[in-house]
Parts: sequence; structure tokens; C-alpha cells
Amino acid sequence: MYPNDGFRELDRQECLRLLAKVPVGRIVHTRQALPAVLPVNFSLEEDGAVVLRTAAASELVRAVDGVVVAFEADEVDAATRSGWSVVVTGPAGVVTDPGEHERLVRTGPRSWVPWPQEVFVRIEPELVTGRALVGGRSLYGVRPPKWIPARR
Amino acid sequence: MYPNDGFRELDRQECLRLLAKVPVGRIVHTRQALPAVLPVNFSLEEDGAVVLRTAAASELVRAVDGVVVAFEADEVDAATRSGWSVVVTGPAGVVTDPGEHERLVRTGPRSWVPWPQEVFVRIEPELVTGRALVGGRSLYGVRPPKWIPARR
Repeated sequence: MYPNDGFRELDRQECLRLLAKVPVGRIVHTRQALPAVLPVNFSLEEDGAVVLRTAAASELVRAVDGVVVAFEADEVDAATRSGWSVVVTGPAGVVTDPGEHERLVRTGPRSWVPWPQEVFVRIEPELVTGRALVGGRSLYGVRPPKWIPARR
Repeated sequence: MYPNDGFRELDRQECLRLLAKVPVGRIVHTRQALPAVLPVNFSLEEDGAVVLRTAAASELVRAVDGVVVAFEADEVDAATRSGWSVVVTGPAGVVTDPGEHERLVRTGPRSWVPWPQEVFVRIEPELVTGRALVGGRSLYGVRPPKWIPARR
């Protein structure tokens, strides 16, 4: 989120309501000292945590376990210049509690392909930000909003 | 890109062909020491560089000018579990050459809203990676591919 860029900022509740609508987002992290971004399916916990399911020995787990990541989802319609983007930022960690793991097997994200040893990765919703873009000028006066941040 | 995760890796040419199909991607960078991701509209140069257009004094410009960023675009259909994701990784920089700026005014990305002082930001395509997901088992034998990286 950048301030003063003409977008409507979304509050936490709106962000989580929108996040719950979509099945796939993108986990943003660092890989070999470079920025990395990977689409993943996910589920949303009641407290706003994002839960991913992956192989225990995956490179993704090694890259994100214990580090702060961003998880982004959006829906943008370029034709109408409308849509939204939500980012959950916080530490990611493998769920190690057996009871919690069992609960997530039942209620967490489905594996698009089951792996022999799967783990859940939980991203803590320390920071939940979002913004909405509504096409047309009616809501924004002289100029419509845009995705590119405004100067301050 | 993670190795051995059941996806079909795309070569550079395929990546650029797919990138050219979509109007909006996401620039991944660091903001105040945290991972940040922002949807933006863009255009693609013939050499694979990604070009954004924004206000000269925007916070985004300050955040990415001269640093290595990732730019991601994707199309995913969760219902059919098919789609693709492409990432361009390289240094971002404001286009300072007047002639090049003028060329981009004509051929570069359109501003969704014009700002008084706009600049173009070019992301060098040092690394262009992508992967495709095709739903169903026919192309992948026993198990279909998934977005979550496999263990190695």
C-alpha cells in the first residue's frame, strides 16, 4: 500500500472478505537473495492467517519457514480498470502442532496433488492491507484512480 | 521456479509470448525492509524488458530504482487447475534518456491516469522464467501437476 495514490484503502475486514473469495494467491519471498513470487492455492483462517499446503521437503518450505513473507491476491479487470488487491504480511511457519495439523487436514486447503509427506505453512496476518479500484470517474471526480502509485 | 515440482517449465520465448497477452502484472520489491507486491499495468519491450509508467515522485520509483525486482504475471483457472505464471527478474531503473522516454510516450504503457510528471521504469529481463499447469492427468501420467513445489 502506498499513501495518496488515489485508491480506496480497504480495512482489515474488507480485505479478509475479498481474500476469502479467491482460491489462488501469490507468496512473495526471497530465493537465493532474489525476490521470488509463486502462485499457490490457499485457505484463510478465521483470524486472517493464510494457510498453504505443500510437501514437507519442498524448497518453498525451506525458503519461507520462519521468515516474513507477503501473500498477495487480487482481481483486476483492465477493461473497466476496476478490481482490488490484498496483501497479508507476516512470518511464515510450518504448523508443527499435531492437533492443529490434523484440524488443517480436515479444514485447510486441499492439495491439488497429494504428496506423501505434506505440511501446512501458516502466514501470520500481522499486517493486512488492501486497496480497491473502481473504474470510471464518477467515484473519483476529475480523474479515475489507477494502479500506479501517486507522487506524494 | 522450483525444480522437479511437476510443472512444465516454459522457455524464454514462451514466457514472453504469455506476458504479452496480459495487461496487468505485479511488481515485487522491498518496502521498509518488508516484502511488497503491487499490481501494475505494463508493456513489454521486444527484448523482454517490462516497462511501467508512474509519477516521477512516486514512492514506487524510490523503492525500485536501481534495485533488482521481480515482475510476475499469471493466469490461473482453479476450476480446471490450469494456467501459467511468468516471472521477469532484473534491475529496475528509471528511463533517463530523453529519446527513449519520447519513444515510450508513444509506444509504452498507457497511463490509467496521467500525472503531471511521469517517468517510465524499465525492468531488465535478466532472468525470465515461467511454468505452465495443464489440468487433468492425461499430460502428466498418474498425478496431475500442482502449484505447490514438490519435494526434491
